[in-house]
Amino acid sequence: MIENKFYSQDVHGPYELHNIGDLVLEEGGTIRNCQLAVATYGNLNAAKDNAILIPTWYSGTSKIMADVYTGAGRALDPAKYFIIIVNQIGNGLSTSPHNTPLPGGMGNFPKVRISDDVRAQYKLLTKVFGIQRLALVTGGSMGAQQTYEWAVRFPNMVARAAPIAGTAQNTTHDFLFAETLIEAITSDPAWNRGFYKCSDEVREGLLRHAKMWGVMGWSTEFFGQNRHKQLGFSSLEDFAINFMGGYFGPMDPNDLLAMAWKWQRGDVARNTNGDLSAALRRIKAKTFVMPISHDMFFPPADCEKECRMIAGAEFRPIDTIDGHLGLFGTDATFASQIDRHLNDLLSMPA
Amino acid sequence: MIENKFYSQDVHGPYELHNIGDLVLEEGGTIRNCQLAVATYGNLNAAKDNAILIPTWYSGTSKIMADVYTGAGRALDPAKYFIIIVNQIGNGLSTSPHNTPLPGGMGNFPKVRISDDVRAQYKLLTKVFGIQRLALVTGGSMGAQQTYEWAVRFPNMVARAAPIAGTAQNTTHDFLFAETLIEAITSDPAWNRGFYKCSDEVREGLLRHAKMWGVMGWSTEFFGQNRHKQLGFSSLEDFAINFMGGYFGPMDPNDLLAMAWKWQRGDVARNTNGDLSAALRRIKAKTFVMPISHDMFFPPADCEKECRMIAGAEFRPIDTIDGHLGLFGTDATFASQIDRHLNDLLSMPA
Repeated sequence: MIENKFYSQDVHGPYELHNIGDLVLEEGGTIRNCQLAVATYGNLNAAKDNAILIPTWYSGTSKIMADVYTGAGRALDPAKYFIIIVNQIGNGLSTSPHNTPLPGGMGNFPKVRISDDVRAQYKLLTKVFGIQRLALVTGGSMGAQQTYEWAVRFPNMVARAAPIAGTAQNTTHDFLFAETLIEAITSDPAWNRGFYKCSDEVREGLLRHAKMWGVMGWSTEFFGQNRHKQLGFSSLEDFAINFMGGYFGPMDPNDLLAMAWKWQRGDVARNTNGDLSAALRRIKAKTFVMPISHDMFFPPADCEKECRMIAGAEFRPIDTIDGHLGLFGTDATFASQIDRHLNDLLSMPA
Repeated sequence: MIENKFYSQDVHGPYELHNIGDLVLEEGGTIRNCQLAVATYGNLNAAKDNAILIPTWYSGTSKIMADVYTGAGRALDPAKYFIIIVNQIGNGLSTSPHNTPLPGGMGNFPKVRISDDVRAQYKLLTKVFGIQRLALVTGGSMGAQQTYEWAVRFPNMVARAAPIAGTAQNTTHDFLFAETLIEAITSDPAWNRGFYKCSDEVREGLLRHAKMWGVMGWSTEFFGQNRHKQLGFSSLEDFAINFMGGYFGPMDPNDLLAMAWKWQRGDVARNTNGDLSAALRRIKAKTFVMPISHDMFFPPADCEKECRMIAGAEFRPIDTIDGHLGLFGTDATFASQIDRHLNDLLSMPA
């Protein structure tokens, strides 16, 4: 357990911590007194049928989901819906390697899977909020992985699903990409098998990891059209160090590693003995599959393959040269594209 | 200077070493008694107009170019053409960091540019072989960079040009990718600023570098269709370690770094004060621009933009899900696609 002021209400609030008790993990470990950091917007109606769940992506917290995806007049409008944004385990706000005391914390933190998060969220929603059915589950990237897991694992509880820029079963290529990100951090001698004194000691590994995100996170066209300069950076180097490095630099290396390991293994087919088609057939939610056109590691083609296996699903790609990290809302057209699709989806009976 | 048996006639032969004298480099350094390793096939005719030049790519040598791109009955047939394959400076066979004695070798090796290679090759072709005009210059990746530099710098000497899977001006995105490859090696403490005792000391950095090539070198579809297994590997891990790692593992870290630095800065616009369009207008060669359909870092769109700036150029993409490393000829249709285009090109008057 080490102090890291980045993971605070000041930076990522407001959110509340909910203790959901002990969480026994699929890989065999246990998180004792598992805390989920949860941000809610709007009010649950009397029928308890206006709840929308948003899980978070790799490195993201509830704040960016609230800022980029919700708001007055948006599809996800707190005036209409009770929006519950749950920070994934390991993201630094919920129980994570850096905020767990030894011996279970830091480099000893147990392996967590997407399905563990979804089971933890299920407990939160049913026990704390008394919710039996979600109007919508939506999220980007690892948030999409959790969305798929929700729709497959609890099909009767998910009315609608909108996985954005993510897959139900992680691809081999994506696994390898995440592996290189992991190694960028673990190869830094200062990482010390997860037992550093403060995260800044691992700054070289974190910066390499950030630059590799720069390669795969955007697209060739993004740089070709000088989008990095339009975002306020004078050169590639300035962008790589001060945007990419500035973004990941304050984060905890073990927290990132916990999420990366989880991301690599996202796979709804674990519910059906490895049969992806059987898993996706379990989905009862009205589903919009929403990849990003220029995504280099959750490419539209991979998402479309899965879309075809889901009954009644619609393929609704988002068009932006910003690639995967277009999820941050950097493209001025992003929010309106998201809203158009989510409005369509929410207007459908389910 | 260290011994490395990988860079030998046994592994990469046959080739001859030609001393072209001192090469003063654009960045200010000097390679004294610069040696170019050269493999030739076929015979120069009396008119000296049947010569084809093939420069090499990052990590490649003359052997793979001969094996995959030339042969009896192929477009590049030694029975018809005098094929000259020149190993680029820094590739381990020609003068390179690892085979240059101190103080100028190893971590002190000077910075070499694509244009330095092309000037060295010009000296070789004119002085050693007495060639004044090339029927064709062709190469893949960094070989394409050299091909473009040839066509722009010596427009009267290049009758035809076929840059495969490479650009005339390296892109910002590609620069960043190469930077992450460089850092995979230089972040290994054993690299020791270029002064290791043997290249195997840097094996961890070399393996990380190899895995990152695995991410960007192929394509999501390549892994999605289990092409890595079809190539004889039982799993992603087996492929990453034994194919990717097996390929790069025996190579010299400083040699790879010299080539990567050069690759990052390939830019024919250096001939025209930064004006790419003006540079490409200098080309007199009949040019086929031949990107690979699934290339993640020299994507067809980037190549097509340049193609439109070259008078009379034709856009001739190669279709394979093997992506950039399809250059190795792993796709059974690759050779026939290459031959079809090169036969077309060679049949055109120029």
